[in-house]
Amino acid sequence: MALQTSPIDKKSHVVSNDVDSEIRQCTEDFFAAVNSGDIDKIMSFYTPDVVAFDMTPPLQFVGVNAYRKSWENGLGTMKEIKFEARDYKVFANDDLAFAHCLSHCTGEMKNGKKMDMWVRWTGGLRKIGGKWLVAHEQISVPIDMKTDKGIFDLKPEQVALN
Amino acid sequence: MALQTSPIDKKSHVVSNDVDSEIRQCTEDFFAAVNSGDIDKIMSFYTPDVVAFDMTPPLQFVGVNAYRKSWENGLGTMKEIKFEARDYKVFANDDLAFAHCLSHCTGEMKNGKKMDMWVRWTGGLRKIGGKWLVAHEQISVPIDMKTDKGIFDLKPEQVALN
Repeated sequence: MALQTSPIDKKSHVVSNDVDSEIRQCTEDFFAAVNSGDIDKIMSFYTPDVVAFDMTPPLQFVGVNAYRKSWENGLGTMKEIKFEARDYKVFANDDLAFAHCLSHCTGEMKNGKKMDMWVRWTGGLRKIGGKWLVAHEQISVPIDMKTDKGIFDLKPEQVALN
Repeated sequence: MALQTSPIDKKSHVVSNDVDSEIRQCTEDFFAAVNSGDIDKIMSFYTPDVVAFDMTPPLQFVGVNAYRKSWENGLGTMKEIKFEARDYKVFANDDLAFAHCLSHCTGEMKNGKKMDMWVRWTGGLRKIGGKWLVAHEQISVPIDMKTDKGIFDLKPEQVALN
């Protein structure tokens, strides 16, 4: 699997500057883990009791072993994948943080289908034993309520501004 | 509009017991605001610069005024609505928190259509001026990747356990 990643967007809105770089590094390391395709490494970024609201069912994955299967299934369908983050925003203090971004997921599936979609990512992080870990995450696309279909072709330019 | 709400689930996993009750109270007050149908009161729970990843497009709402329109649109379609939270989980310290739950949304739309769905909610909260405010939230349902459709009939019993 050829995986490529890009560094996260440098724009941020940070409560604590001290930990901002730590959490950004954590995110970049996580991207590198996805890049390597090393499932053990990927899962090492999650707390053992992580609760994940993923793009695909069920409603929630409880525990890192359950969530690992979802990751394995997702990576197993991909020939090549690239993640880019935009509008990355972190709120953090010494041992607790939440972050969110829009993530551009592009690549090619093993069946030859191209992937090019923007998803929304929210993470809840805890610093445990000196390491930032993801205790919770939610990943989704908006729904067209007329067709009930997920909308995969939205672009971040289409932002509703204040 | 006749809105009903239920108290949030009492099960939780809390980092700081001191602020747990504050954040639960904030959530219950928010439900009461929805119950009252008072849009100003509802929006008072958000920071001015809230970034929201809502069920419906666009990808993100930036700022409370933009998000208010989404709330107005949503409430405007409903004759009756009831929110219940399950698996409510809070991680918090003095001035920062994240929380998540599964929310059972039932009710009736003005066009007579019944609503009965479970959604995933994640919130990032900040304590500002002595009050907990939602600086970020994401609300979604999982997608069936074969049909691209949002899945509205999932039940929380269908949890993938560790």
